[in-house]
Amino acid sequence: MKTYKRLSYAERAALCTNHMAQQLFSLLSEKETNLALSADVTSCAALLELADKLGPEICVLKTHVDILTDFTLVFTQELVKLAKKHQFLIFEDRKFADIGNTVRHQYQQGIYHIADWADIVNAHSLSGPGVISGLAEVGLPKQRGLLLLAEMSSAGNLINSDYIQKTVRMAEQFPEFVLGFIAQRKISNDPWWLYMTPGVQLAEGKDTLGQQYVTPTKALLENESDIIIVGRGILQAKDPLLEAKKYRQAGWNAYCAGSKTK
Amino acid sequence: MKTYKRLSYAERAALCTNHMAQQLFSLLSEKETNLALSADVTSCAALLELADKLGPEICVLKTHVDILTDFTLVFTQELVKLAKKHQFLIFEDRKFADIGNTVRHQYQQGIYHIADWADIVNAHSLSGPGVISGLAEVGLPKQRGLLLLAEMSSAGNLINSDYIQKTVRMAEQFPEFVLGFIAQRKISNDPWWLYMTPGVQLAEGKDTLGQQYVTPTKALLENESDIIIVGRGILQAKDPLLEAKKYRQAGWNAYCAGSKTK
Repeated sequence: MKTYKRLSYAERAALCTNHMAQQLFSLLSEKETNLALSADVTSCAALLELADKLGPEICVLKTHVDILTDFTLVFTQELVKLAKKHQFLIFEDRKFADIGNTVRHQYQQGIYHIADWADIVNAHSLSGPGVISGLAEVGLPKQRGLLLLAEMSSAGNLINSDYIQKTVRMAEQFPEFVLGFIAQRKISNDPWWLYMTPGVQLAEGKDTLGQQYVTPTKALLENESDIIIVGRGILQAKDPLLEAKKYRQAGWNAYCAGSKTK
Repeated sequence: MKTYKRLSYAERAALCTNHMAQQLFSLLSEKETNLALSADVTSCAALLELADKLGPEICVLKTHVDILTDFTLVFTQELVKLAKKHQFLIFEDRKFADIGNTVRHQYQQGIYHIADWADIVNAHSLSGPGVISGLAEVGLPKQRGLLLLAEMSSAGNLINSDYIQKTVRMAEQFPEFVLGFIAQRKISNDPWWLYMTPGVQLAEGKDTLGQQYVTPTKALLENESDIIIVGRGILQAKDPLLEAKKYRQAGWNAYCAGSKTK
């Protein structure tokens, strides 16, 4: 009998010192789902309906709060209730990309008060470590977590291997706040980093604006990511709940195939 | 007598095919100011007061609409009125940094409807040309313009010369929509690109979150940028209007020193 190919989510939870990574790895393991839903709808009612209906299938609900045409703070309270009810985390896909002093305001203030309801946010490492320091000033006291964008799924993006390595080095400077990466594949041998991969569909392909899709198996098994982010693959299906169950199963199967003895 | 060191704003306006670049170069020349105000306040009233008071001194008002705690669409209507009254352009410093399909929504929809009131927005080239295509679908029919972030002023940022050159190549694919760059210096020999430089103060230095400042003379004369973006240098002064006049004068002197016969 051979050794395990990869550590399980539960084993990795035990290795984490980052609070949010630990929480999320445990959730993956206990709820038996590595499916994140990219809930790109433009009304609060539609988003809440999706969250309530698909909540039992997912580990993370990913939002773009700034495409909602009728956003209110009451909506965020409802969303937080649903996250507790169905046991998922809220990830606002803000892609902070400014200097530290500005992102600090964008994260805490404005209309959205993102830090008050989003468990996880993400940021581009492009502008340097100040972006992380600025966000951490707001997020750490609230026990929030940050994902750094280490790779993108869009055609012709300017990220290369040097950029990825510098992003990992930057994350290593903020182990309390950074829980992992948005990436297409595992990019570090340290087992405590968590990876989420966007641009996942059951069939490979691309959209008309350069988005390129990979399958759950490719993302989780071949590329050793941890969580698949699925948007249009589920939202544009005739029966989104049924489709979410398919993705959940495909994702879980790929995880099991990668972590079982072989 | 020697030849001109640089073409004047008016001469460059005549060389532009991009509508927004033409309009802005003409404005610089006629209003005799290359000062952009970074209006990073957190209330609509404070922003409108600044815009009304400092409007006569500036060519561009740069906003971060998502740090305003009391944003309404009425506010944007008031801001547009002030822009017409004092002849400045509105530049929402959104730093779009997602895939094309997402930025299209973020630009047009949500609470902010940025495309309806911002003459200019900016985007990171990081995610590839899809970000420009997505924004152009919304912005071109409204005759808006886009600046690409080709350099940043924050410490430890990951932009290198290869990234800058790829950003220029990307801009060249969209000459109707891209009017120029956020950069620390001139990065192309084509005279129709317009450059705006952030992180400008009368004294060099840095903040506690990695922002690094250059002087107007360094930005405009030595580095051959076109517009200086000043925020805290003016906003934190005892008399912001007086300080704005100083920056305007310093900026204009640097421009004249660079474009006059010598």
